[in-house]
Amino acid sequence: MKKSIVAGLVFLNGIAMVAQSKDEQMLKDIYKAGLTNAKCYSWLEHLSNKIGARLSGSENAEKAVQYTKTQLETLGLDKVYLQEVMVPKWVRGEKESAYILDNKTKITVPIAALGGSIATPKNGLTAEVIEVQGIEDLKILGDKIKGKIVFYNRPMDPVNIETFKSYGGCVDQRYAGAKEAAKFGAVGTIVRSMNLRLDDFPHTGAQSYGDLPPAEYIPTAAISTNGAELLSQKLKVNPSLKFYFKQSCVQMPEALSYNVVGEIKGSEHPENIMVVGGHLDSWDLADGSHDDGAGVVQSMEVLRIFKQIGYQPKNTIRVVLFMNEENGGRGGKKYEELAQINKENHIFALESDSGGFSPRGFSIEADDANFERILSWKNVFEPYLIHSFVKGHAGADIGPLSSFKMVKAGLKPDSQRYFDYHHALNDKFDAINKRELELGAATMASLMYLIDQNGIIK
Amino acid sequence: MKKSIVAGLVFLNGIAMVAQSKDEQMLKDIYKAGLTNAKCYSWLEHLSNKIGARLSGSENAEKAVQYTKTQLETLGLDKVYLQEVMVPKWVRGEKESAYILDNKTKITVPIAALGGSIATPKNGLTAEVIEVQGIEDLKILGDKIKGKIVFYNRPMDPVNIETFKSYGGCVDQRYAGAKEAAKFGAVGTIVRSMNLRLDDFPHTGAQSYGDLPPAEYIPTAAISTNGAELLSQKLKVNPSLKFYFKQSCVQMPEALSYNVVGEIKGSEHPENIMVVGGHLDSWDLADGSHDDGAGVVQSMEVLRIFKQIGYQPKNTIRVVLFMNEENGGRGGKKYEELAQINKENHIFALESDSGGFSPRGFSIEADDANFERILSWKNVFEPYLIHSFVKGHAGADIGPLSSFKMVKAGLKPDSQRYFDYHHALNDKFDAINKRELELGAATMASLMYLIDQNGIIK
Repeated sequence: MKKSIVAGLVFLNGIAMVAQSKDEQMLKDIYKAGLTNAKCYSWLEHLSNKIGARLSGSENAEKAVQYTKTQLETLGLDKVYLQEVMVPKWVRGEKESAYILDNKTKITVPIAALGGSIATPKNGLTAEVIEVQGIEDLKILGDKIKGKIVFYNRPMDPVNIETFKSYGGCVDQRYAGAKEAAKFGAVGTIVRSMNLRLDDFPHTGAQSYGDLPPAEYIPTAAISTNGAELLSQKLKVNPSLKFYFKQSCVQMPEALSYNVVGEIKGSEHPENIMVVGGHLDSWDLADGSHDDGAGVVQSMEVLRIFKQIGYQPKNTIRVVLFMNEENGGRGGKKYEELAQINKENHIFALESDSGGFSPRGFSIEADDANFERILSWKNVFEPYLIHSFVKGHAGADIGPLSSFKMVKAGLKPDSQRYFDYHHALNDKFDAINKRELELGAATMASLMYLIDQNGIIK
Repeated sequence: MKKSIVAGLVFLNGIAMVAQSKDEQMLKDIYKAGLTNAKCYSWLEHLSNKIGARLSGSENAEKAVQYTKTQLETLGLDKVYLQEVMVPKWVRGEKESAYILDNKTKITVPIAALGGSIATPKNGLTAEVIEVQGIEDLKILGDKIKGKIVFYNRPMDPVNIETFKSYGGCVDQRYAGAKEAAKFGAVGTIVRSMNLRLDDFPHTGAQSYGDLPPAEYIPTAAISTNGAELLSQKLKVNPSLKFYFKQSCVQMPEALSYNVVGEIKGSEHPENIMVVGGHLDSWDLADGSHDDGAGVVQSMEVLRIFKQIGYQPKNTIRVVLFMNEENGGRGGKKYEELAQINKENHIFALESDSGGFSPRGFSIEADDANFERILSWKNVFEPYLIHSFVKGHAGADIGPLSSFKMVKAGLKPDSQRYFDYHHALNDKFDAINKRELELGAATMASLMYLIDQNGIIK
């Protein structure tokens, strides 16, 4: 090699080392700020315990909009504002009831109407039950389904290490189970809760009748995993037992709601926008502390950390608290719509919507070049036990974002406990560990910092 | 290169690939067995809910010995037996009481006597308080300590990512605080609980008077972190406030107890022993579900998994459930003593005593060659999110083991929640997640398998 090349390489290597050590120091500062001065835990305490469940269109959802806006205003950002968005409004009504009618014995089981379901007749619905392992079974059963309640009972696969994979392998039963069963003349559907654990909590969640004519809608509800096991056992002994359930949920007219947005203007490329966000709405059964109160306060915390350590980003950093992820995704769609109208250029979006557990890494949507660049930061993350950088789904709210060239990422917390709480009445503040929540926020701030410093490869 | 060398390298590479793919398949089988058929969770349910707290020398500790022995006998091992060991027996007596006496106001605070402490006088002890940040402060204060209660209030450092490091930075206050303060004429000591969280649970734990003459022993207790914060605040306003505490703990004569041992005889090298273990005893305030019920049932599960999948180990695999880790370490010492007498050759020991949380890796005591060999298995562990392989302390019970050449390892679970429960009344079964517990056991079985197949480098 020529001397000049060698000298050049030594010089470049020197630059790389300086950059690396600057990054190491910055991550130290970020994690220190996040572990000693964080506000995310107290913000979440308010969202969970003072406000509570925040289903789209509810009074609590609006309280959450106002509260987070007010809190963002205390951070000294350059701008805090709301984006109007119309959201579906579904109301559960009075608590559901259900029992297995085995000969003359009534055995009560815990159910919860699925979001978007219609009510049963006023006095409830009673019918024989046909158990299936999935939508694909319906065709085989054909006429046998007519007049019956279809009971979807395929459990989440315990063998997958990543529990979201097991969720993905089951959730079609919940989302499309009623629509499909209705086509075969079912009068209702009962769906095993999406939980790996055996317990007594029904887990609600979105379902859709798709393009079914409203006259053909049938009521659908989740049953707890213990309830599902029991029903299945009883059916083996007495296939002609009956199931009764009653729910009075109703779809209301759409309501006006808001995304909450706060931003720090970029010092070098204010036209390049980097988003960090989670969703403000939750299901109605509990406080949504993990889903997605955690993601909301972690996203706010990212900007708080930057302010605390005096980091002035090159690009515009925007926290977006999306409305209506759970049953419509309207907030994410509206954000993208406005970004298009305003001809905004997004280079990066980071979402936290997988719970407030110990962070393990990121799920990344990027081309190979940008993915490799993120992988090159693995060693900077190692002291913080952040190790899992994989290509995969980044998030539902940042999904619609479609700038010409951008990178998306989702925070990947440890997933083992997530479905114990997901959409159920125990998704409460006491299921949150302060340090795990804070570590997640610091991990998010670290990736935001690294992307801000290095940009993305166009 | 000569063709023969190339051919040779290709051949060796081929062998390595076959070995790798065999290992990958075996880990798949191990994790599958551990996530679908595990008994560890139900064993722990019994230990925690049917037996409960298991302090050395207590009736419950003996019940745990009998229960685990009986359960091991159902696994079809080659041998299950007990090792006699004499253990210290300390009894807490009636529940402690304590209050801050600020002028005439009494403010109750939660305390718990430290293990091994003496009682206060029958009617309690009242004295002024001197707050310190550690043992090193005593010298500076000198005579001012006389007649006072020393209040050790150095908190665990929230900035460390590994919480055990923060524990190590504080625990001297608990273990040696009373002994050292007594030398300066203190009448008692109150120690801030070893917890990163602010809550109302005092965390007990071992303390030692060392070589202090018994006449100079002073009573010592842990105070909850909230209690410590309150006491510190009140002292700032009124440095001459008084503290009252009363405890009636007593050191009894030593008692006979047991290590529980089960083994599968090695098919190729029965003379080489590989140990996997945790400790059967717990503190007395709760069920010790994390500390160390989890380690006990995970160790048992390792052998159950091997039996289920029909794995016949080359070396002898021994599960050892140690007695008295918490306040004496007698079980570990006895096990080593008997190993020496029987001229046993241990090549590997694996301990689980850091809680039943999601496994992250191993802390390893090995020379460079053996450490590098373990590191070479990192990619086989990666699908299970096991990523952290570091040199460090392996465990207290396997500490005394001293075969000529051996490797030791400790399971490293996620550490963020551990000190919320450690030695406190909330270390109960409901703090355990079934999957996290099972993943830990499968991770342990995987390392046992890999060492068994590859041996250690002598």
